[in-house]
Amino acid sequence: MALSVPQWGVFEQAFSGPSDGNPFTEQWIRLVAESPSERIQTEGFYDGSGVYRVRCMPSFPQRYTCTVTASFLTQPWTGCFDVTEPQQGNHGMVHVANRFHFAYQDGKPMYPVGTTAYVWHLQDPAIQRATLKALASAPFNKIRFCVFPKHYEYNLGEPIAYPFEGTPMDSSVLNERNFQEYTGRTEGNHFDGTRFNPSYFRHIEECIRKLGELGIESDLILFHPYDRWGFSQMGRVADERYLRYVVARFASFHNVWWSLANEYDQLPAKTIDDWEYLASVLVRFDPYHHLRSIHNCGPFYDHGKEWITHCSIQRQDVYRTAENTDQWRERYQKPVVLDEMGYEGNIEHGWGNLSAKELVRRFWEATCRGGYGGHGETYLKKDGILWWSHGGVLQGESTPRIAFLCKVLEDIPGNGLSHVPARWDDVCAVVDGEADAGPKPYSLWYYGFQRPSFRDFHIDDVTWYHVDVIDTWNMTITDGGIHQGRFRVPLPGREYMAVRLRKKEEGSRKP
Amino acid sequence: MALSVPQWGVFEQAFSGPSDGNPFTEQWIRLVAESPSERIQTEGFYDGSGVYRVRCMPSFPQRYTCTVTASFLTQPWTGCFDVTEPQQGNHGMVHVANRFHFAYQDGKPMYPVGTTAYVWHLQDPAIQRATLKALASAPFNKIRFCVFPKHYEYNLGEPIAYPFEGTPMDSSVLNERNFQEYTGRTEGNHFDGTRFNPSYFRHIEECIRKLGELGIESDLILFHPYDRWGFSQMGRVADERYLRYVVARFASFHNVWWSLANEYDQLPAKTIDDWEYLASVLVRFDPYHHLRSIHNCGPFYDHGKEWITHCSIQRQDVYRTAENTDQWRERYQKPVVLDEMGYEGNIEHGWGNLSAKELVRRFWEATCRGGYGGHGETYLKKDGILWWSHGGVLQGESTPRIAFLCKVLEDIPGNGLSHVPARWDDVCAVVDGEADAGPKPYSLWYYGFQRPSFRDFHIDDVTWYHVDVIDTWNMTITDGGIHQGRFRVPLPGREYMAVRLRKKEEGSRKP
Repeated sequence: MALSVPQWGVFEQAFSGPSDGNPFTEQWIRLVAESPSERIQTEGFYDGSGVYRVRCMPSFPQRYTCTVTASFLTQPWTGCFDVTEPQQGNHGMVHVANRFHFAYQDGKPMYPVGTTAYVWHLQDPAIQRATLKALASAPFNKIRFCVFPKHYEYNLGEPIAYPFEGTPMDSSVLNERNFQEYTGRTEGNHFDGTRFNPSYFRHIEECIRKLGELGIESDLILFHPYDRWGFSQMGRVADERYLRYVVARFASFHNVWWSLANEYDQLPAKTIDDWEYLASVLVRFDPYHHLRSIHNCGPFYDHGKEWITHCSIQRQDVYRTAENTDQWRERYQKPVVLDEMGYEGNIEHGWGNLSAKELVRRFWEATCRGGYGGHGETYLKKDGILWWSHGGVLQGESTPRIAFLCKVLEDIPGNGLSHVPARWDDVCAVVDGEADAGPKPYSLWYYGFQRPSFRDFHIDDVTWYHVDVIDTWNMTITDGGIHQGRFRVPLPGREYMAVRLRKKEEGSRKP
Repeated sequence: MALSVPQWGVFEQAFSGPSDGNPFTEQWIRLVAESPSERIQTEGFYDGSGVYRVRCMPSFPQRYTCTVTASFLTQPWTGCFDVTEPQQGNHGMVHVANRFHFAYQDGKPMYPVGTTAYVWHLQDPAIQRATLKALASAPFNKIRFCVFPKHYEYNLGEPIAYPFEGTPMDSSVLNERNFQEYTGRTEGNHFDGTRFNPSYFRHIEECIRKLGELGIESDLILFHPYDRWGFSQMGRVADERYLRYVVARFASFHNVWWSLANEYDQLPAKTIDDWEYLASVLVRFDPYHHLRSIHNCGPFYDHGKEWITHCSIQRQDVYRTAENTDQWRERYQKPVVLDEMGYEGNIEHGWGNLSAKELVRRFWEATCRGGYGGHGETYLKKDGILWWSHGGVLQGESTPRIAFLCKVLEDIPGNGLSHVPARWDDVCAVVDGEADAGPKPYSLWYYGFQRPSFRDFHIDDVTWYHVDVIDTWNMTITDGGIHQGRFRVPLPGREYMAVRLRKKEEGSRKP
């Protein structure tokens, strides 16, 4: 009987091999899996204790034949597996669709609604469980987190484990005031960058798997500057070895996105040339071409680079960021994901002390300008657990409003929205691809902090439109009737209102 | 006994003359008034019923000798007057001081805090009385209003009078939907642009005088596009005649500012050349050089022009306007007055439906970036009386907060504020002129919609600072103690907070 694996699941085969010397650098193992429609060539990896593994993620409901070669196998191993129905909720990888948007491999549109909890997986198990519990009832379908541990304000504790064999510097000397002096230091650490800690990566796999079960994409941050262990400045050879190890282990999970760096411009040890080289490693070794991005602190990376699938954007201005979404779409001709447009919270920093209303407003701006917002929470608490870094419990007021926005998104009759110019004080979105097609069957008008008591519309003279009045903060949708020609929509004179117009189906008549 | 007039008061002398023909175009009268320190040369005007008047505003407590010549006087009239103490509350004209700020002639700093009620003076007397009553207890020390009547949304009624002899078009055909079709039309009107209506202008003088008694500057809008009577397209000859008449009548009032136009770019009949010519008329005939500006709808007029004393700015962007104040100061090297940065209200237009919180936030942004904000209210009411146009009653929540801001402004130890770069999420103001002088004796830090729970400061190591925590919305100032070196200021994690640091006086000790 052939082995079997669900479509977009992980096929894995383990092999015994040498554990002496340094198996990470001295041994290799590779897999080629072939079906009538697909040929997957991947590197395997050493998982410790003399165990080597190869993995692949098949995309077609076919029979795959496999050939495994390894430095320690005297002859190739061959086998085959059948691909069965996907597991419930697994729609395959997310890819760019309709130029500015996303879809799963089975065609289902994917409207990314992300959150950030940089090192939730490196906290105490109880906090990790709380995080997963919170995510289970939250609207987020993407979470940004780091492969490496994080050293930063409110993040001075030791992670539960390290990615390499070795011992860290003494962190008892650290406090909130001196942490910056230790950022980027390497002294005091004794890690062997050639010897991975397999259990560290197994744990991340477990996290990716659990997130997958919740329908959540893992937007994995591969490098970042919040470092006191030296992982941000290992040099190109070690960086490549690390990236290939990560790809060999994680690429077979359908719900993985690669974020090459967070705040790439804050890693003084790396040049644009380094980033381009590391990107080329991702492109070469990831046979599935998971989504790839690179996130800025200050100036954008050139999102026009071919390897970048979508813009992953941090706030550019205290006042105006989501409001630029349509301009960035136009400039880069790629999806615009505002992964960090400020967080709901009350810490001292301007990026982490927005009101829920302001964060939700930015979500709607991003949405109605044809892009996607990102969430985070930075509330000071006595236990020092901040969602943005540790995960834990969601306590903000934005999350339910983001869930409400998701419902509105899911009702769009197409694959995403596009901003169209209207009156100067309108933010108007239509279904992407229909910008030039005359009267739009669907349009969404958002008024942000404006408080109109009414708005007049005149789309055309003949079409009947269903009008919905949407209170984006109070999360209500009120039937505004069916109208034709020039009509007035009464509004409550409150902030955060939207109006949705939907063309009445052909053949139907005004009631 | 010589005549007398208070310093910065209106000296006036009346003469009888011909009332036949057209005295406005066929006669002239002029005054020269001289004191040891000043020579004032002005045009007089025909005030109807055979009465001609000359006026002047003396700036020095001296004896002035006067010579009046006129087309109808066979020989000059001579006389003299003594200038006495100014009337209480009259500090003289406002002029630009310290490059970016304003002061009265007696040296008192003038922090403009303006409001707008375009045609409050052309409403029913009861509404006019209500407006003056409202202004008497409001913080505003400047009000923008139009010399000509206004035709616009919510402004379709007839004014109480017209500036010229004649009759207007039939306005019974107008409604809120068709008013734009009548904007700029001249048909149906029968006005004689060569014959002013003196009582119309006398009434405006009375309004200017009453405003002066309340300590309020009249920012007179000389031309504007909201017109169905033809006053916006009279042609250069009639425009000049009108301007000279206005100057002859109003320039002797100390509390007059000239706003050459509101939304200059919305008057299709006038070119930049026209505006420059009309500005030159103002410069030539106003001997006092009252403040002069010109207000935009879309693109700015070139505020770099010499005749422009300060920038009079309308909102440029839905999101970001007051936030550009410091850039505009830098560009034009003149005071920046944001006369229209959006109004508190609930009408349909984005410029007239801000929350009080957003308007007050813009005031603080403008202030802490070294400029000055402007107020307006556009609340829909059953009686159709909107403050921004008709005056009446102030009902918004921004006014008391603006009064609170004024108190903070009056406490500045110098002639205005200047923005200095600080952390990206700080808006920091210091006393203007001290930007490069090391640790600042006074600084004001504003956090807008940010909600920090604390902020750390480290100005220098030696100075002691009084810290005040200012809640700009709830209008409280809380003593934050006296600190030196690096210190932390706890904040409530709410929006609209500011921190004020004031150097402790030399010689005093920490308590």
